[in-house]
Amino acid sequence: MELKLAFIGLGNVARAFARMLDARRSTLEQEYGISWRVTAIATGSHGCALDTNGIDLNEAVAMVERGESLAALPGASIARSAIAMIESCDADIMFETSPLNPVDGEPATEYIKTALARAINVVTANKGPIAFAYRELKQLASKRGVSFRFEGTVMDGTPVFNLAEYCLPAARVTGFYGVLNSTTNLIITEMERGSTFDDALKQARRLGVAEANADHDIDGWDAAVKAVALANVLMGADLRPRDVAPRGIRGITIDDLNEAAREQSAIRLVSRAYRSGDGVTVTVQPEKVPIASALGSACGTSNVLVLRTDLMGELAIFEYDPGVVQTAYALLSDLIRIHERINRARLSE
Amino acid sequence: MELKLAFIGLGNVARAFARMLDARRSTLEQEYGISWRVTAIATGSHGCALDTNGIDLNEAVAMVERGESLAALPGASIARSAIAMIESCDADIMFETSPLNPVDGEPATEYIKTALARAINVVTANKGPIAFAYRELKQLASKRGVSFRFEGTVMDGTPVFNLAEYCLPAARVTGFYGVLNSTTNLIITEMERGSTFDDALKQARRLGVAEANADHDIDGWDAAVKAVALANVLMGADLRPRDVAPRGIRGITIDDLNEAAREQSAIRLVSRAYRSGDGVTVTVQPEKVPIASALGSACGTSNVLVLRTDLMGELAIFEYDPGVVQTAYALLSDLIRIHERINRARLSE
Repeated sequence: MELKLAFIGLGNVARAFARMLDARRSTLEQEYGISWRVTAIATGSHGCALDTNGIDLNEAVAMVERGESLAALPGASIARSAIAMIESCDADIMFETSPLNPVDGEPATEYIKTALARAINVVTANKGPIAFAYRELKQLASKRGVSFRFEGTVMDGTPVFNLAEYCLPAARVTGFYGVLNSTTNLIITEMERGSTFDDALKQARRLGVAEANADHDIDGWDAAVKAVALANVLMGADLRPRDVAPRGIRGITIDDLNEAAREQSAIRLVSRAYRSGDGVTVTVQPEKVPIASALGSACGTSNVLVLRTDLMGELAIFEYDPGVVQTAYALLSDLIRIHERINRARLSE
Repeated sequence: MELKLAFIGLGNVARAFARMLDARRSTLEQEYGISWRVTAIATGSHGCALDTNGIDLNEAVAMVERGESLAALPGASIARSAIAMIESCDADIMFETSPLNPVDGEPATEYIKTALARAINVVTANKGPIAFAYRELKQLASKRGVSFRFEGTVMDGTPVFNLAEYCLPAARVTGFYGVLNSTTNLIITEMERGSTFDDALKQARRLGVAEANADHDIDGWDAAVKAVALANVLMGADLRPRDVAPRGIRGITIDDLNEAAREQSAIRLVSRAYRSGDGVTVTVQPEKVPIASALGSACGTSNVLVLRTDLMGELAIFEYDPGVVQTAYALLSDLIRIHERINRARLSE
């Protein structure tokens, strides 16, 4: 069985995924029986390409990295828009990696809806659609008998959604807490070492962790979007980021950090979710936590998520020094899951 | 479909599992389509019972807790031995929870072999068979087309084996390190607070964490058995505990711990595995580690395992305050997995 793949977005994550697909081609074929061809690519600023005979993905990646348009691809034709392309691409799986829109999750949500409505399986690394439209997208996927997967949206490739889905059967997630934003955590770690806030932010930018405009991270909105995504999926909530009133790290001083250190503590931007009445409440705020704790031991760009469960007590999963390769791995892991499901459906026909 | 269950061992873990089965009976039936009846129970000191019409598990648990023999169970007959009972029980799944024998993993390994050879699925919470005979047991299960599952053998119910099996597809575990023994970690934490070694050990016994004879824990053998089990399963090693020369925590003094604390560090009994040449090397020894690290933040009875992978970088999973309920949950989670597989096989017939 050859899977037809569509790429919406060919940025850092998608290109790292393309490299991983190429490097693991024989493993995927031999161990999982997966072979694939790319039939559609839509980018924000390099044009689109559509060819059901197959597009050379390595060449497309190289073109984007040279700043060229995909229009020069042999055999490629240019589609009118990403939506028009999704409507006509006839892919088995669409990989949606367009940039996050923290205001309403668009146009990613519309792309995903369009694909699911055509019974195209969808993998996304974009947390917007999970924070703004998870329930609707999940229901649409279910109605059309296809998969909607998003392991890469929170903590990069670290299996947080898969951990709950595959490793905690019959258990319920009753709440969670964690350090979910790398930029703010790196800034705090740099300040613990004596940097000013401004120098720490510059360092985060130098390392490629912070964007040019890091307000979204610093004010806690990135953590809020992730916490809402987790609450919607793991706890059945139906929240939106605006339901959280995040407090970011702007007010934190070197004195605060030194004082915490004297008490064997550290300050972390902590996201929490807990059940309250019929609903779920999510908070994002700086907290003083013991150094020798899950939250305290998350330093620099590392992330941690602690799940509270009814049957398995508390368990935590950590990711160290996350990067684009880990997010790319999440897309690969979602691809393997979807292939398994397609395969099983074909076998039982 | 009603599953016929056999219990080998009705100690703390098996009784907690029996309570969980009873409490979740309707969830298991409604959400997973699992119904069950117990057809055989063998204990070390309370006799055996065998009744294909079904044994009242709650009553059996109550009898053992009152110190009574199972022979008084209505409808029960006494089988000659655990082996004879396994040979005649005709169960779908056997739950093996006999006590660990750290010298050679027997008789648990023999029980499991006997069951697998009769195409009975096996769940064990006993790490001996994984450390002494994993490869052979896995091959036997595969040959007979049944499952051999053991999530409860390392870090109680925390999904370590399932994490690797279900959440890291196409990735390879290249090594691991962790704090895997609760008794020694609790002793170290108590000593960090100023207790002597002897008082800390007494405290661990009072809390039910340490056995009357804790030498096996203190000298690093429990951690070695667990690390070997992990290496055999996650890294394809074929090691035995005697291949490790563990160094335990006997030599550690309060002065050592204080000196480490002054350097923002802590001492932990660390298990490590790494590839060396064609093989895998496992070490168990006390190490000085930063407080603000995965290893350093594991305090008291908490455990941590950090996996190194080729595609997903490093990720860690933590368990806080583990207990018998978490191990019982591992048995439940293995039961659900096996039911899924049986179900799928029946559907595709």
